[in-house]
Amino acid sequence: MKSYEKMSKEELETLKKELDKKYEEVKAKGLKLDMSRGKPSKAQLDITAGMMDVLDSSTDLVSEDGVDCRNYGVLDGIKEAKRLFSQMAEVPPEKIIMYGNSSLNIMYDTISRCMTHGVLGSTPWMKLDKVKFLCPVPGYDRHFAITEYFGIEMINVPMTPEGPDMDMVEELVSKDDSIKGIWCVPKYSNPQGITYSDETVRRFARLKPAAEDFRIFWDNAYCIHHLYEDDQDFLLEILEECEKAGNPDLVYKFASTSKVSFPGSGVAFLAASDRNLEEIRKQLTIQTIGHDKLNQLRHARYFKDLAGLKAKMREHADIIRPKFEAVLEVLENELGGLGIGEWIKPKGGYFISFESMEGCAKKIVAKCKEAGVIMTNAGATFPYGKDPKDSNIRIAPTFPTPEELAEAAELFVLCVKIVSIEKLLATK
Amino acid sequence: MKSYEKMSKEELETLKKELDKKYEEVKAKGLKLDMSRGKPSKAQLDITAGMMDVLDSSTDLVSEDGVDCRNYGVLDGIKEAKRLFSQMAEVPPEKIIMYGNSSLNIMYDTISRCMTHGVLGSTPWMKLDKVKFLCPVPGYDRHFAITEYFGIEMINVPMTPEGPDMDMVEELVSKDDSIKGIWCVPKYSNPQGITYSDETVRRFARLKPAAEDFRIFWDNAYCIHHLYEDDQDFLLEILEECEKAGNPDLVYKFASTSKVSFPGSGVAFLAASDRNLEEIRKQLTIQTIGHDKLNQLRHARYFKDLAGLKAKMREHADIIRPKFEAVLEVLENELGGLGIGEWIKPKGGYFISFESMEGCAKKIVAKCKEAGVIMTNAGATFPYGKDPKDSNIRIAPTFPTPEELAEAAELFVLCVKIVSIEKLLATK
Repeated sequence: MKSYEKMSKEELETLKKELDKKYEEVKAKGLKLDMSRGKPSKAQLDITAGMMDVLDSSTDLVSEDGVDCRNYGVLDGIKEAKRLFSQMAEVPPEKIIMYGNSSLNIMYDTISRCMTHGVLGSTPWMKLDKVKFLCPVPGYDRHFAITEYFGIEMINVPMTPEGPDMDMVEELVSKDDSIKGIWCVPKYSNPQGITYSDETVRRFARLKPAAEDFRIFWDNAYCIHHLYEDDQDFLLEILEECEKAGNPDLVYKFASTSKVSFPGSGVAFLAASDRNLEEIRKQLTIQTIGHDKLNQLRHARYFKDLAGLKAKMREHADIIRPKFEAVLEVLENELGGLGIGEWIKPKGGYFISFESMEGCAKKIVAKCKEAGVIMTNAGATFPYGKDPKDSNIRIAPTFPTPEELAEAAELFVLCVKIVSIEKLLATK
Repeated sequence: MKSYEKMSKEELETLKKELDKKYEEVKAKGLKLDMSRGKPSKAQLDITAGMMDVLDSSTDLVSEDGVDCRNYGVLDGIKEAKRLFSQMAEVPPEKIIMYGNSSLNIMYDTISRCMTHGVLGSTPWMKLDKVKFLCPVPGYDRHFAITEYFGIEMINVPMTPEGPDMDMVEELVSKDDSIKGIWCVPKYSNPQGITYSDETVRRFARLKPAAEDFRIFWDNAYCIHHLYEDDQDFLLEILEECEKAGNPDLVYKFASTSKVSFPGSGVAFLAASDRNLEEIRKQLTIQTIGHDKLNQLRHARYFKDLAGLKAKMREHADIIRPKFEAVLEVLENELGGLGIGEWIKPKGGYFISFESMEGCAKKIVAKCKEAGVIMTNAGATFPYGKDPKDSNIRIAPTFPTPEELAEAAELFVLCVKIVSIEKLLATK
């Protein structure tokens, strides 16, 4: 296909007329489609329907460590849950704390604790004039929302195919002791689906931050969320690398079963060094009577072990892989070679990240909306909702049906074409 | 019985020899009993065993408002849960937010938010030189632990049979704008079992605090936890009283099903004014993907309505009433008229509060422990664990069996007698 850049003004104008007509036709259909939500479909929820049958009134509800899971007691998780999810977290069971149903909630609580109590004896961040976080971009809007809520200044760090730009990370954290953390989704990153390279992980582990209370917020949300059983990404285990590097306390690691069992009723967990865990347990003693142990027991008995988790993840992949491929196929067929957009074919995770020409993302998303297709807000993948190039668009293909997706993707590429031509014409 | 005060030195010495001998005999039995934990017994958990059968894989898991409870979505609670628990909270459904399994966690989060974000636009408490809380005493140790954790200075306010000393409360909050809150367990208070009088509630509602961001932390933990169906305490509904008094935003109200369904896997909720709820929802959007809706659905379908909750509470009462009465009978029989201790016969809640002679509580608890009976630490019912009179002891009769309780109570009164005689002898 001919690159749009190389087309004459006349060619572009002719093409635009065609596309505008097509757009009006699609618009007339009155679509109501949504590609904005990183949300499993009903078919995915049904994969673990058996979760609802694991425990009933005839079941022994006592955990392996002898605790009646209905009652008070046990702050950081029952034995079988810690064993199972430590396998998912790739750490020993004693390095894990089980929480409630939301890893986001753990991250929020962690930042909140740093604000009010500091880290291992450091000054509470609320008492400092300035606290900054590094934010690899594009990234996860809910991470940025937490740091924004707490008035933490966010600094964009560009993503590369290997992970965040580590030259920049090293430079910044070694010089500025007001930089207290960095948000990372190290595997199948949100939204690009990039997995950090071994070298990137090792450079993270070897960081020498100016701030002793600097922490890496390692949100391994998609650790077992592969699309291709036989073509997976592999991520080095960061806690071990930190230990090797003499930096054992540098990282808080988070994960959950939100996209393994049920998004609303899964279990979440945190892994960290002994010193970090000790501080966190001290907080937990004050904060709660302990998290829902019956749900931990339900998960542990249902999935049994890592193999059990992986088996279910294969079923998830079987459902969402065709959806990713449907969108990617439309992108490739319709935009390939036109020079008006780029995307990465992810091997896992929940998103496809699309890079339009500069200054086009907002217009594309608005144009999609006008014709009944909701995309994630342009800018959402950047701190403060501000994409400096106005070019990144996050596509979430898991929730709609494949038919809906094909329809939505067709409209999307149409909008990309029209908006791109408008931009090109404006400079001719 | 003859008051110990009126006994001669010789009489006391003779009596002490007898009691010491008895104590050694009990000690030799090697008891292992625990009256320290406000924890339901297994028999109580079995009351709601049917909770485990409400939902299974064949159940429709969609809430009344059309939400698949397994998936993401719904921040502040599904419709049927809000309806049910608004009845328990005695407020309209729109005045309630459903949380996870721990009302303590809501209270912690509330204080934490006030520390980092203030209240309705006020200065974050972390940015103030001094923040103080009023603490009716004796009170609940976990409340005091939260305020202590955040460095909030705690001021003791004595309890009266009508609730906290309101003259003192009014005086303090009207004069000192660093006083930002008060902890209240207004019904069947922990540990005394006192229910605030109508006048006390109205005086709370009419408070004119110097601090605009002063809030009453109204922990209605035992709102439906009666021991006697036909002899209940009644508590005025505080939110309505605050509205009437032109103080709608003055109170945060908390409750949970921890002692209704399962302590570890119940649901908790908060009620407040529209303005307060709006601020809290804004935080929740940042903090979590929403709390466990399946557990909300389970509770709503199991209990159905307030009558359903009350029916189960009658079964709880049938189990714990004899336990309370067993302890009270021993206290009455063994200590009545001796002038060495006082206690209140509660009509609900989870505790019996015992007042020893001044300076005796720690010694009594230690002496019990030496003979194998664990009581709540003396001092635990006061901020910083410091009971100025060293006289309050919290007795928790729900977890042990009636037989164990009788045995433990017998040892307890024996220790009270011995320690009291020691005190009296020291001054003769």
